[in-house]
Amino acid sequence: MDKIVYLDNAATKKMSKAALDAMTPFLTNEYGNPSSIYSVGRNAKKALESARESIANALNALPEEIFFTGSGTESDNWAILSSAYAKKNIGKHIITTAIEHPAILNTLKHLEKSGYEVTYLGVDEYGQISLDELRSLIRDDTILITAMTANNEIGTILPIAKIGEIARERGIIFHTDAVQAVGHIPISVKEMNVDLLSFSGHKLGGARGVGVLFAKKGLRLPPMIHGGGQERGGRSGTENVAGIVSVAAALEDMLRRLPLTNVSEKRDRLIKELLKIPRSKLTGDPIKRLPGIASFTFEAVEGESILLLLDSLGICASSGSACSSGSLDPSHVLLALGLSHETAHGSLRLSLSEDNTDDDINYVLEKLPGIISRLREMSPVWNPNS
Amino acid sequence: MDKIVYLDNAATKKMSKAALDAMTPFLTNEYGNPSSIYSVGRNAKKALESARESIANALNALPEEIFFTGSGTESDNWAILSSAYAKKNIGKHIITTAIEHPAILNTLKHLEKSGYEVTYLGVDEYGQISLDELRSLIRDDTILITAMTANNEIGTILPIAKIGEIARERGIIFHTDAVQAVGHIPISVKEMNVDLLSFSGHKLGGARGVGVLFAKKGLRLPPMIHGGGQERGGRSGTENVAGIVSVAAALEDMLRRLPLTNVSEKRDRLIKELLKIPRSKLTGDPIKRLPGIASFTFEAVEGESILLLLDSLGICASSGSACSSGSLDPSHVLLALGLSHETAHGSLRLSLSEDNTDDDINYVLEKLPGIISRLREMSPVWNPNS
Repeated sequence: MDKIVYLDNAATKKMSKAALDAMTPFLTNEYGNPSSIYSVGRNAKKALESARESIANALNALPEEIFFTGSGTESDNWAILSSAYAKKNIGKHIITTAIEHPAILNTLKHLEKSGYEVTYLGVDEYGQISLDELRSLIRDDTILITAMTANNEIGTILPIAKIGEIARERGIIFHTDAVQAVGHIPISVKEMNVDLLSFSGHKLGGARGVGVLFAKKGLRLPPMIHGGGQERGGRSGTENVAGIVSVAAALEDMLRRLPLTNVSEKRDRLIKELLKIPRSKLTGDPIKRLPGIASFTFEAVEGESILLLLDSLGICASSGSACSSGSLDPSHVLLALGLSHETAHGSLRLSLSEDNTDDDINYVLEKLPGIISRLREMSPVWNPNS
Repeated sequence: MDKIVYLDNAATKKMSKAALDAMTPFLTNEYGNPSSIYSVGRNAKKALESARESIANALNALPEEIFFTGSGTESDNWAILSSAYAKKNIGKHIITTAIEHPAILNTLKHLEKSGYEVTYLGVDEYGQISLDELRSLIRDDTILITAMTANNEIGTILPIAKIGEIARERGIIFHTDAVQAVGHIPISVKEMNVDLLSFSGHKLGGARGVGVLFAKKGLRLPPMIHGGGQERGGRSGTENVAGIVSVAAALEDMLRRLPLTNVSEKRDRLIKELLKIPRSKLTGDPIKRLPGIASFTFEAVEGESILLLLDSLGICASSGSACSSGSLDPSHVLLALGLSHETAHGSLRLSLSEDNTDDDINYVLEKLPGIISRLREMSPVWNPNS
């Protein structure tokens, strides 16, 4: 195989060895159905519940507060839709931020069609919200605040504990999409004052097809999927034991590596060196950012063109979120930072994992400046002296 | 490991070698996100679309009619909820059968709470419906008929093509839950006249955590899960490529084995020999039944007790559906056949796969009659002369 430098770990990560090792027996000999009463099923049940405990511990939660779903997106949908439906007699106003993932924004759009009102909190140039503004937006009919723990495109970490404090004072349900954060930074649902927290297994080295929803004890969620009554009636369907076990193992493995200094040092080197490229800009918060995300804009180039040239050299990266990388619209996140359409189009996200080596970073630093120059030479809008 | 004879394949099946081999690369080296544009992502995308084509071929459908979900249950929920919501201005009446899986029944119960009306078509002693009765139940406001292809507890195969014909004549959407049928009997969505068909990967040797929904071209389904727009906007969330690839491979493998004569011969031997036990009864249709399902009632014994004693000998089986095997209520399916509560409590389902050997069958035939006798000796209601 040709050289591959994978720097799109925020889109999806290679499974960790720990995850794969934990998963394998459940793909082969331990194939029982956890709902059954015989030995093979009991082993599966035990593995399922021990994964639930391990994940609960990792989040400073209780096992009965952990629900398994099919994806982070499904967890987000469940959290938001069930909160909205459960509280509809109290109010129909929801507050979120302008930089959420489409899993949040499109679920809220769906609710807007059926009479819910959503306020989108703007962000500053670093992607940070204002807590005072949040306070001023809360109304008597506000039933839910949903704000991401950390942004997938620019890496900004939001002040979740403080948002949670405000929500709690006002008796409003608080959900956070922590898909990019769990396993990458320390997470405690207690310290973060969250009622609901979603994440996905494959962003931290587990198998794809597994999401997790933390729902604080006492919060009664209407079911997401109706059927045989698995996940305490909330999310029916035969449990994906192999996938779930892999996620628990992946998370344990990541927690042992925190803080990801090894990763953030490489990120910092990328940032420091790539900002030497003329008219390049770091996007997101320079301090409060995920250890693995280095994100930029380069004036007068197209992000898609950078990706294609990087790909021809074996470097995998993304421009904006993976989901929207097929789209021609500039990222809503970058626009929310106040960037122009033109600048937002020239965005690049390099997302690292603990598997990336110094050689990977060297290779990118060796190749990327030349790519930007070449693209600018071909660009009708580039004027080196302007 | 001690001897294990696994006869609960209708609950969940061991992954087939074909499925595991196909899946493995996507758990290790082929970890790209299919939404991305670089090489690693393109390989994942190619694998995803080739799995979709393979499954479409297997069902006599088009690739664009195949949607991947997180489970058979999710597919059932999506089919029913989206049909109901899409047609609510035309009517709110739905027809189903009394022997559906909880994934269907509990989704319909949810709709009943919001003003939909559901008619439950009864069945005869074999679990068969009457087409004339179905015709007579159709009203002008009937928007959906949902009937399972084959029952999970008693193996009865319903006359889906004829139900579909009736639905089509009246312009009613027709959905079938084919979770037990796909891979086990020939399936053609065209010949079956279905608009929607759900199934699950793990009942045919694929990984757990993958469901499939066939939706006939032209049928516009509202999304099940909102987000990044995967599965043509219908079911957002990063695609579980490894799982999906395993399901396509498992299905191809099963199709090569059809008709499962090897399985149905063993099933027939089990039925023939076990019916020699006094006051035993076959449940379900003696002719139109799934190749792998041998299901019985034994008077004056508890199904749960049979399971426990079988388990102590390494035999894995179930009583009623796996989902409800933790419950003390008798199976709704057996009650629908007209069996008394007492008789329904003494039910046993042995579900075979192509992995079961003649020795497995011999072992069950050697052990089960003794178990029934022993339990009857301890039973206060057993009178051998009555």
